[in-house]
Amino acid sequence: MSDGTPPIPGPAGPREGLVAGGAHGPGRLRALTAIVLDALEDAAPARGGPLPAGGPEVVALSTLARCAPVLPEEGVGPEAALGDVVRAVAEGAADPADPACVAHLHCPPLAVAVAADLAGAALNPSMDSWDQAPAAGVIEELTTAALARLIHPTAPAPDALITSGGTESNLVALLLARERAVPGTLRVVTGANAHHSVHRAAWMLGLPAPVVVACRDGRIDPAALDDALASLAGAPLLVVATAGTTDEGRIDPLPEIARVAERHAARLHVDAAYGGPLLFSERLAPLLAGLEHAASVTFDLHKLGWQPVAAGVLAVADAGMLAPLSLRADYLNADDDTEAGLPDLLGRSIRTTRRPDALKMAVTFRALGRRGLGELVEHCVRTAHEFGRAVDTRPGLRRRPGDIGISTVLFRPTVADALPDEAGDAVVAAVRRTLLAEGRAVLGRAQAEDGDGRRRLWLKATLLHPDAAAAELLPLLDLVTAAADRAATEAEADGVVTGADADRAATEAPGAEDTDAPAAERLSP
Amino acid sequence: MSDGTPPIPGPAGPREGLVAGGAHGPGRLRALTAIVLDALEDAAPARGGPLPAGGPEVVALSTLARCAPVLPEEGVGPEAALGDVVRAVAEGAADPADPACVAHLHCPPLAVAVAADLAGAALNPSMDSWDQAPAAGVIEELTTAALARLIHPTAPAPDALITSGGTESNLVALLLARERAVPGTLRVVTGANAHHSVHRAAWMLGLPAPVVVACRDGRIDPAALDDALASLAGAPLLVVATAGTTDEGRIDPLPEIARVAERHAARLHVDAAYGGPLLFSERLAPLLAGLEHAASVTFDLHKLGWQPVAAGVLAVADAGMLAPLSLRADYLNADDDTEAGLPDLLGRSIRTTRRPDALKMAVTFRALGRRGLGELVEHCVRTAHEFGRAVDTRPGLRRRPGDIGISTVLFRPTVADALPDEAGDAVVAAVRRTLLAEGRAVLGRAQAEDGDGRRRLWLKATLLHPDAAAAELLPLLDLVTAAADRAATEAEADGVVTGADADRAATEAPGAEDTDAPAAERLSP
Repeated sequence: MSDGTPPIPGPAGPREGLVAGGAHGPGRLRALTAIVLDALEDAAPARGGPLPAGGPEVVALSTLARCAPVLPEEGVGPEAALGDVVRAVAEGAADPADPACVAHLHCPPLAVAVAADLAGAALNPSMDSWDQAPAAGVIEELTTAALARLIHPTAPAPDALITSGGTESNLVALLLARERAVPGTLRVVTGANAHHSVHRAAWMLGLPAPVVVACRDGRIDPAALDDALASLAGAPLLVVATAGTTDEGRIDPLPEIARVAERHAARLHVDAAYGGPLLFSERLAPLLAGLEHAASVTFDLHKLGWQPVAAGVLAVADAGMLAPLSLRADYLNADDDTEAGLPDLLGRSIRTTRRPDALKMAVTFRALGRRGLGELVEHCVRTAHEFGRAVDTRPGLRRRPGDIGISTVLFRPTVADALPDEAGDAVVAAVRRTLLAEGRAVLGRAQAEDGDGRRRLWLKATLLHPDAAAAELLPLLDLVTAAADRAATEAEADGVVTGADADRAATEAPGAEDTDAPAAERLSP
Repeated sequence: MSDGTPPIPGPAGPREGLVAGGAHGPGRLRALTAIVLDALEDAAPARGGPLPAGGPEVVALSTLARCAPVLPEEGVGPEAALGDVVRAVAEGAADPADPACVAHLHCPPLAVAVAADLAGAALNPSMDSWDQAPAAGVIEELTTAALARLIHPTAPAPDALITSGGTESNLVALLLARERAVPGTLRVVTGANAHHSVHRAAWMLGLPAPVVVACRDGRIDPAALDDALASLAGAPLLVVATAGTTDEGRIDPLPEIARVAERHAARLHVDAAYGGPLLFSERLAPLLAGLEHAASVTFDLHKLGWQPVAAGVLAVADAGMLAPLSLRADYLNADDDTEAGLPDLLGRSIRTTRRPDALKMAVTFRALGRRGLGELVEHCVRTAHEFGRAVDTRPGLRRRPGDIGISTVLFRPTVADALPDEAGDAVVAAVRRTLLAEGRAVLGRAQAEDGDGRRRLWLKATLLHPDAAAAELLPLLDLVTAAADRAATEAEADGVVTGADADRAATEAPGAEDTDAPAAERLSP
């Protein structure tokens, strides 16, 4: 010590080589990531399916065996901890890279994006000031500018923010709309098909609950929207439409909605968390016609974009709309620093410290290009239509009548149709849970309108895998049919079937009609 | 195709090996992470310092050269994209693993945490439903339970949530307080030393601006708090105190604040984003006495916790407090699924899709144990005190009078004291910017009370490096002294110095007093 102060003894043991950055960190990280990659490599065969068999209790026990106590008094060391915990999480994963894992808008991330994300974690730039993220800030700016131009190609000054996902994007969209109105006056109007985050955002922001407009076939009815807006005349209005609903992949009729909104001087926000990446494909982009009229757009790259979570985006038609987010905090963006040329990053988020999520997006964009990304989106859409046609040919299954929404296929076993509605829905739900508990398939569920206008429960396959072919998905259909037969037999044993119900199901249930979607036509050669 | 439909031709070229998961993903990921690790290894020597030299324009140009266009029509392939963009972000980083990077609560992440995070990214569990995160959900539960017990050891049913950081933790704390009050009635009372996110949260939630209570020496004055609460009698009240202020590392007098809050029936939230991890150390935990009275606590492991962003926590004394976050969304937690035993994860966040940030925390906790984490916290505190004493021995530097706050040291060059206040502060700001532009040091800045009661600008060193020794930090002091002499000479040339100012500075400025903090005493052998 140069200052002559007697040193305070440090703790026993060496502390070298702890951190991931600097000159020596990457070497240390190389050794530790090797342990992670080995564990991941071993886990998929050990798991033996898209998720572990046995259901929640079994998974909890095997995870506890490897991970508890999670905060011991004395540590077990990095190697042992990594080996145990990573093995537990991988063997106990619902791995979206398995073709039978199709429940949610939960994508298998691209290896290139995951590798890029490792660099972000190791360097740990925080996106709230230039002196924590000199180059990462530039990369974010490039990325948001490219997304802004993709989403609002003809706007003079579009902009985009990186968010933690569609929920935060919707929250910020409502916040920006609230701030341009006289306090307490904004009314939000959305469809019955909207994501729950729209309602949650209104709640958080202290706004009245959104007015909900009826849907037809899972899409906002523009006439109903017109009526709703007329009934709110005088209030500042925000219309929230959806391009890719969570349950059905439906795209609201954006051009008509934009016209209705304009007539009532309402601002339009479009939640395109799922559908937005259709813009990467020249052939599919026209499905989003009308999006250019939206003042703000939720766009999510951890769905059709194959980024590891989080990779949310909020695009705005005009950069000036973001003014309410601007903020001064002396330690991050003092006036004199900004005047001296240090870029001010603070007004780009409702968060303060932020991971550099733009980094993995930028690497993926550069790696694949717009064309490559478009081809992956097209692959998912095409696979969904092939899968839908396969469902149509199975006598024991019935696809929901109507178009396939983006890459979401709804179907149910016909044995469920032979039961009273509630019992039929229970069979559908039981099939899903059985396949989960057996570790064989991760299917989703959705309530949606049937051909007779009644809402029923469906199995949902959300096809987001950029590699998997339709043929790899077909075993799912056999699994569903077999599980449904077992569930229906149990239901029959419980005496829930009536002859009348069975007759109705046989005569009224829409059959295997071929109802190709516009998306499929666009992908035909 | 088994259904006889003519296949729609796919795009040209193979699509195998894209994803990070499944059986083949880890092999692909191994090849791509090797590119990342090589780029990281090359970058630190190429950068030649804690951040790149040249300032914002130079960094922007070199980043653009490697990364633009970020979204080309045709991609360059994963290897080239990773090599270029990772090299750009690493050479252009402000790397907190460099001992001279000490501006912010911006930690160098542990290699073990970064490696664990890679597994999370590759498997991509989303924490909003069991069927996306079977084992990851269990690991999160173990981790939050351990943190809840650490923070509220004597509460009968404590709980904790994972958040995106202190800002989200504070937002949720205010939201929970808002929801237990009659709408429109909650008043938030906080110190002048509180983080800006407290004010931002109130704004977002539609609450009145927080009432700000005066501080003494950077800590809430309990008498002033008492007066403020008395003046708001009748309203539901939330007091927000801070344990580890951003500017000074100060810990508010929690026992006194808790007593005052109780007297006024106010709920207490403590923002311990910085100071919370003192709890890992038996010797330092007493500094947080009184924290047990807080209904909710912000706790952040991407500061003193060495996690890559994000690693936020909100702990609550009673799990029942989280009820306002509960939410039903049929696709994620249908009643019948929950009744059938599928765990419901949805009410654990204001986000929906969520990265498994608990995974890296769990691996780090298991690896180091509470004792190992405590030793790293002690290392940072000890290093700050050694650094502070080194400042005290330098004739050209002056440490802010008073205790060192956790691991934050404020100091300024004495040449700045010889100038009128505004000019002196300008010299301090210029020193910081000069060292940033030269790529030599990343120091922070803070306005804080001086010995004469006046607020002045200080250079801030926030010592969070778990490896770096005080000796490695001493070159910073030479850099500051030299840059300050240059800046003062320039200021003199501009004619801002007066003889009276110089005399005042020489006679009044507190010298190199030894003002050891309670923290230092606790670490003495």
